[in-house]
Amino acid sequence: MYRPLDPPSRILLGPGPSDCHPKTLLAQAIPVIGHMDPAFVAIMNEVAELLREVYGTQNKLTLPMSATGSAGMETVTVNLIEPGDNVIVCVNGLFGERWVDVATRAGANVTVVEAPWGEAIDPADVEAAIKQGSFKAVCLVYAETSTGVRQPLEDIAKIAHDHGALFVTDCVTAIGGIPIEADKVGIDAAYAGTQKCLSAPPGLAPVTFNQRALDIIMNRKTKVQSWYLDLTMIAQYWGGTKRAYHHTAPISNVFGLHQALGLIHEEGLENVFLRHATLGKALQKGLEAMGLKLLVKNPEHRLPNLTTFLIPEGIDDATVRSQLLSQYGIEIGGGLGSLSGKIWRIGLMGHSCRARNVIMVLGALETILTELGYKCDKGASLAAAQEVLAEK
Amino acid sequence: MYRPLDPPSRILLGPGPSDCHPKTLLAQAIPVIGHMDPAFVAIMNEVAELLREVYGTQNKLTLPMSATGSAGMETVTVNLIEPGDNVIVCVNGLFGERWVDVATRAGANVTVVEAPWGEAIDPADVEAAIKQGSFKAVCLVYAETSTGVRQPLEDIAKIAHDHGALFVTDCVTAIGGIPIEADKVGIDAAYAGTQKCLSAPPGLAPVTFNQRALDIIMNRKTKVQSWYLDLTMIAQYWGGTKRAYHHTAPISNVFGLHQALGLIHEEGLENVFLRHATLGKALQKGLEAMGLKLLVKNPEHRLPNLTTFLIPEGIDDATVRSQLLSQYGIEIGGGLGSLSGKIWRIGLMGHSCRARNVIMVLGALETILTELGYKCDKGASLAAAQEVLAEK
Repeated sequence: MYRPLDPPSRILLGPGPSDCHPKTLLAQAIPVIGHMDPAFVAIMNEVAELLREVYGTQNKLTLPMSATGSAGMETVTVNLIEPGDNVIVCVNGLFGERWVDVATRAGANVTVVEAPWGEAIDPADVEAAIKQGSFKAVCLVYAETSTGVRQPLEDIAKIAHDHGALFVTDCVTAIGGIPIEADKVGIDAAYAGTQKCLSAPPGLAPVTFNQRALDIIMNRKTKVQSWYLDLTMIAQYWGGTKRAYHHTAPISNVFGLHQALGLIHEEGLENVFLRHATLGKALQKGLEAMGLKLLVKNPEHRLPNLTTFLIPEGIDDATVRSQLLSQYGIEIGGGLGSLSGKIWRIGLMGHSCRARNVIMVLGALETILTELGYKCDKGASLAAAQEVLAEK
Repeated sequence: MYRPLDPPSRILLGPGPSDCHPKTLLAQAIPVIGHMDPAFVAIMNEVAELLREVYGTQNKLTLPMSATGSAGMETVTVNLIEPGDNVIVCVNGLFGERWVDVATRAGANVTVVEAPWGEAIDPADVEAAIKQGSFKAVCLVYAETSTGVRQPLEDIAKIAHDHGALFVTDCVTAIGGIPIEADKVGIDAAYAGTQKCLSAPPGLAPVTFNQRALDIIMNRKTKVQSWYLDLTMIAQYWGGTKRAYHHTAPISNVFGLHQALGLIHEEGLENVFLRHATLGKALQKGLEAMGLKLLVKNPEHRLPNLTTFLIPEGIDDATVRSQLLSQYGIEIGGGLGSLSGKIWRIGLMGHSCRARNVIMVLGALETILTELGYKCDKGASLAAAQEVLAEK
């Protein structure tokens, strides 16, 4: 019955997980030590400090939750929200929709502010909504993984604060790919994942809370509905003066994240962001030169690390992605929800974000599409990408 | 600021995590593939099948949740329980206490059936309680990690079923160390962890639900309060005919678990249980020969894989554990809750469960204790352990 593990070799250019640096993978092969070992506590402190750097924050309560990014969404929600609280959730993609569901399960009265998928939320719509009541929080996705939209944060942060609400953001696809600057922007709480631009395997959800958010958590009237995600206890394990046992931390994942964050620190955050910005632009120019249409019309709202574009008329989604996987070992993403079958998503995230991958995926896509009868100016995509790459 | 990872070399003989086999650690260094990759789906199926073997079940809904063992407790609870449900939780240690907390947060009306820490729950007490009302579930810890008690299951399973209640068990410390035989015993739902006798790193919570439990979940009147742990959706990702995306599975952890379960499968479950039974007995005889007193008085209620014993009069808990760690690189566990400072816990779990570790920890403990003035018959513990080891 038992077949030894033998997974295929892939290049991961979907919306996450991304490829990991070999050093990060090897860090996960380091023998496990105990979750209360003084040596592990020191590593936890270093991970928290490195996370503060990518979040752009001094927040004491900054740590990786012991579950994947989606549990990060649930963590900020169930800790900050008590049943009956009013919150605004901005929805312009699948992850905004999910947040409505998560907040509703936490007992919140949710007011939804919408924008079409592929567009950013209009701050004026948030302002109009927040004037209608008293809200505890405004929840906003910074980088919408389902659409590739980069949401400007500053205006909505100001609106939330002017009306006494917390400003809470989803940074899953943003972290390590584009600047967050949580303290400067005024983010009160945020969550992320490890498997995108941090290029650690999935399994942890880095979160950060400022003092204002922490005070709200510590002064709740009701218990957090999730024992596992209850920060009133977890904060004691990750940052208390006496480290109190809560649950057994996923040691190997923390080792992997430590190494992945170390690589970012050594490259330098500004260099990391520039690499994502340049290569994302090269990919997008290349796709446009192939005659493909980007989903996000406003260039300022395009994520560099996750590019979304329309599947051409007459081309079958599954056929192309399956050929990319089987013939080239390249994974790209399909559309989610209402965009299923309509768009593709190419991630250039973390270790996957390299010039060779831009050239490779453009070439492979052009080859498959033209074999399927798609007409384009052969080689134009490579030339367009090269032009951006040469700008450096 | 960045210091490369440099954790010390330990032998893990606490209550978990245990040491991992090098093959398991290396499986976590295999490059990540996508969570929707057909190759990953095949690996998921194999992991589920291997988990059925250690659980002793044919249950279709058997999978590792994407979080640690404590999230397994929350998973069975929030999926099976709806607000207002009556449940019985048996409490004879910290994890029973935790379960009361978790169930209460899920909106359950909890009736507690207690036994002193270090003793098993008396089925007659469960029977007396269950006659007082109508209960949806009886929750019982099979292997109490805080006390080392092995709880007989059959009688309480029958009582639960005779009164129409689900029988739900914590198998965190049991799985892969002692037989579970979920189908034969009549366990309707159970959860476990990977970091004890399965000897995979912490990070996943294997759960199993039989058809009766699954029907209850699928016919809930209310949504599961946790989106992240909601099996009505996760079951579609792990076992649906069309694998629907829910969250990004922790790929490396699944690889590690696959390898760890493969090692157990290759050794043979009966051999694995015999190894734990024999070496646990050797350790316990050795400790008794050293004049130390086991916490669990009834030999039939002693776990072989987790031995608990009293700290001798006049000996300081922290001094001894700290010397074990710094001088020998051996981790053992202290007491939890009301047993803090009063007992030690030695785990012989999975890959940590080997004869060399029994001899080593007895020798190291005797050395440290006698240096601190403890009087015992030198060498008697080794002789007592050897006697058991020679029985094979």
